[in-house]
Amino acid sequence: MAVASAEHKYELITRRLDEVLGGDLIKGILAEERAPKCYWGTAPTGRPHIGYFVPLTKIADFLRAGVEVTVLLADVHAFLDNLKAPLELVAHRTKYYKHILLAVFKSLGIPTHKLRFVEGSSYQLTKEYNLDNYRLCAIVTEHDAKKAGAEVVKQVESPLLSGLLYPGMQALDEQYLGCDFQFGGVDQRKIFTFAELYLPRLGYAKRAHLMNPMVPGLGGGKMSSSDPDSKIDFLDAPEVVRRKIKKAFCEEGNAKDNGVLAFVGAVVIPISELRLERLRGNTGADADEGAEAAGDQTPFALEGAPDGTVFSVYRKEDYGGSLHYASFAQLKQDFEEKKLHPKDLKTAVADAIVRLLEPIRKAFEESAEWQEVEKLAYPDPNAKPDKKKKKVRCLSVVGAYLAYNFVDLQEKVYHPPPPGKGKNA
Amino acid sequence: MAVASAEHKYELITRRLDEVLGGDLIKGILAEERAPKCYWGTAPTGRPHIGYFVPLTKIADFLRAGVEVTVLLADVHAFLDNLKAPLELVAHRTKYYKHILLAVFKSLGIPTHKLRFVEGSSYQLTKEYNLDNYRLCAIVTEHDAKKAGAEVVKQVESPLLSGLLYPGMQALDEQYLGCDFQFGGVDQRKIFTFAELYLPRLGYAKRAHLMNPMVPGLGGGKMSSSDPDSKIDFLDAPEVVRRKIKKAFCEEGNAKDNGVLAFVGAVVIPISELRLERLRGNTGADADEGAEAAGDQTPFALEGAPDGTVFSVYRKEDYGGSLHYASFAQLKQDFEEKKLHPKDLKTAVADAIVRLLEPIRKAFEESAEWQEVEKLAYPDPNAKPDKKKKKVRCLSVVGAYLAYNFVDLQEKVYHPPPPGKGKNA
Repeated sequence: MAVASAEHKYELITRRLDEVLGGDLIKGILAEERAPKCYWGTAPTGRPHIGYFVPLTKIADFLRAGVEVTVLLADVHAFLDNLKAPLELVAHRTKYYKHILLAVFKSLGIPTHKLRFVEGSSYQLTKEYNLDNYRLCAIVTEHDAKKAGAEVVKQVESPLLSGLLYPGMQALDEQYLGCDFQFGGVDQRKIFTFAELYLPRLGYAKRAHLMNPMVPGLGGGKMSSSDPDSKIDFLDAPEVVRRKIKKAFCEEGNAKDNGVLAFVGAVVIPISELRLERLRGNTGADADEGAEAAGDQTPFALEGAPDGTVFSVYRKEDYGGSLHYASFAQLKQDFEEKKLHPKDLKTAVADAIVRLLEPIRKAFEESAEWQEVEKLAYPDPNAKPDKKKKKVRCLSVVGAYLAYNFVDLQEKVYHPPPPGKGKNA
Repeated sequence: MAVASAEHKYELITRRLDEVLGGDLIKGILAEERAPKCYWGTAPTGRPHIGYFVPLTKIADFLRAGVEVTVLLADVHAFLDNLKAPLELVAHRTKYYKHILLAVFKSLGIPTHKLRFVEGSSYQLTKEYNLDNYRLCAIVTEHDAKKAGAEVVKQVESPLLSGLLYPGMQALDEQYLGCDFQFGGVDQRKIFTFAELYLPRLGYAKRAHLMNPMVPGLGGGKMSSSDPDSKIDFLDAPEVVRRKIKKAFCEEGNAKDNGVLAFVGAVVIPISELRLERLRGNTGADADEGAEAAGDQTPFALEGAPDGTVFSVYRKEDYGGSLHYASFAQLKQDFEEKKLHPKDLKTAVADAIVRLLEPIRKAFEESAEWQEVEKLAYPDPNAKPDKKKKKVRCLSVVGAYLAYNFVDLQEKVYHPPPPGKGKNA
């Protein structure tokens, strides 16, 4: 494609977002023909579900606009969120997340050479970072930290100190990952404004913040990695996908709290549009875009659909024939007016998801390494536990983190100099 | 002296303390003829005042009992307590504190080869420590952290996060400094019991805690480094000492809230007893004890005082003649019964302090290095500030900490590996 204008890139970067804070900063970078740098973080905890398609579809826009994207695999956070999971397990999960994310981008045909993965443990335990963390703690009030985390940190009766540290760490991450803007769901808004307030107080630049709308889960609420009924796994087989979608909450005429409908708007239609753009020769910032795309790369339109269709719903002629939509607004309106029945929508969405997951499942089946990582990252909970062995493992957890090499910890014990031999002697 | 028994050493270690938690742990170490390890921390902030004689006199007991004593110069804390003081200034103050502490021990004739100084920045910014700090924050509730710091952390309307981190850090210090017991004022009690509760939850040993009684300042309240009227500086000239003691709160018959009287009990009499013990050939764990003692090493008794006098008060014959005390209890009783007038007590205490400070002042006057450090650590506030220069300095503070070598920070910026080249690739 021709070199995109700064305006076009800005439109690509910000389309479909719920809110942009500091857009002028990004415009300024684009006007200077520099590549904006973005950071998006995820903690490698439970198995990632297809809700991840939502930020990843948006990140595809960033990459297509030439943005340099850093994915923070927040392993330290994952470890702290669940101290029962030893760092070893977190390390396997970190690898698993990386496999999934790369497979998703590949399935979307998005070149990933402008994408880098950084593990939190690679810098969140350094002297520089921790001194900054201490400095931040010396100026941040309990009140501000609590307010910042109110929507993201679990609200419990006896809150832990870690919940108060997270907002500050997420602010410091912007500095240490060298980003121009941080991207996240709009539920991160208070964390983002906290970062805008406090980073400059440490002498660091204020970053821009781009926020995706929140997409309800298939149960109608927030998608959750810990509730297996509310989410579809990236590796679920077609029949599992169809069964879960069948069970999903999708009330006739109710477009609110409708995870099935929302998924079409946040994932299926954007991917259709991406494919249509590419078919029209608009390959984004990278001429190679789509060259290595895995799986079927046609839009989610049925054969014979009119040009520009981004989503089709199959229906027998007896029931009025198939429906074709050129926009989410049209689809939503039909659903609200009960012109589209939940059962038909569900079938179409299940078909779309099965198509989306097919190349990811295939990549998994073709990678012995990934399969091995999967076994280690999410051991079968129904496997008979060897009680004796398990006990030893629990006891060793406390010590294991120090020896574990992925956090690059030296096993050296601190030996200060004898009096008279120290630096100040 | 003959090798002291474990019982004798334990008595020496614990005498005059307000409270001992975990004494059996120390007894066990002594029974195995090992040297217990102790840690005492101080943050190098304001100029240390003679209130420091209180813990140092007790630490002299530890050293005489063969305890290996670590003095933590908590520079990171000092920096965080007052972010306006750049790390460079804190580094000078750290050196200044070390000079003072060594001079005091020398003036007491206590060999310091079993004393080591450790700067907090030498280990509190390491990966191991910070991962442990994060782990602690993931199990410590806000409630427990706040409770632990209630007596030590400044209680303000908008409390800062740092105040919640200090108790945990002080607990981790016990592990990282490898101590068997921590020593401090009884105002540290809640911090100490917090450490006893939480260190084992990280898989670390529970330590013993030895607590000194609190000694009121010369103003009747807590001695404070920041209130120049309430404290006598180690380097104050004799006339300054006498003037400050004259102004001190010392009400006739009131032995409570009486910093002048309390100083005799906590410092002057213990030092007299130390000198008497040494005169009797009891040199503690080290045969060299007293060999290099600086200054007059006689007890604070007037000529002609009966044997065993630990404190004398000069009085003209007209007023009943001088008073001689063999214990603090006798002195206190006389004062409460108004047999000893505040004016006479004050004169005797001023004399004692002048004698105590004389070798310290002399050490300062003989050390060009210390004098230089003093100028840098506590610049004359009345010196005319060069406004232009000052402004530059303020601006550079934020960046200066990274370049400053005492915290051994590498100035390197974090550069993660490119995708496909990382550890997990």
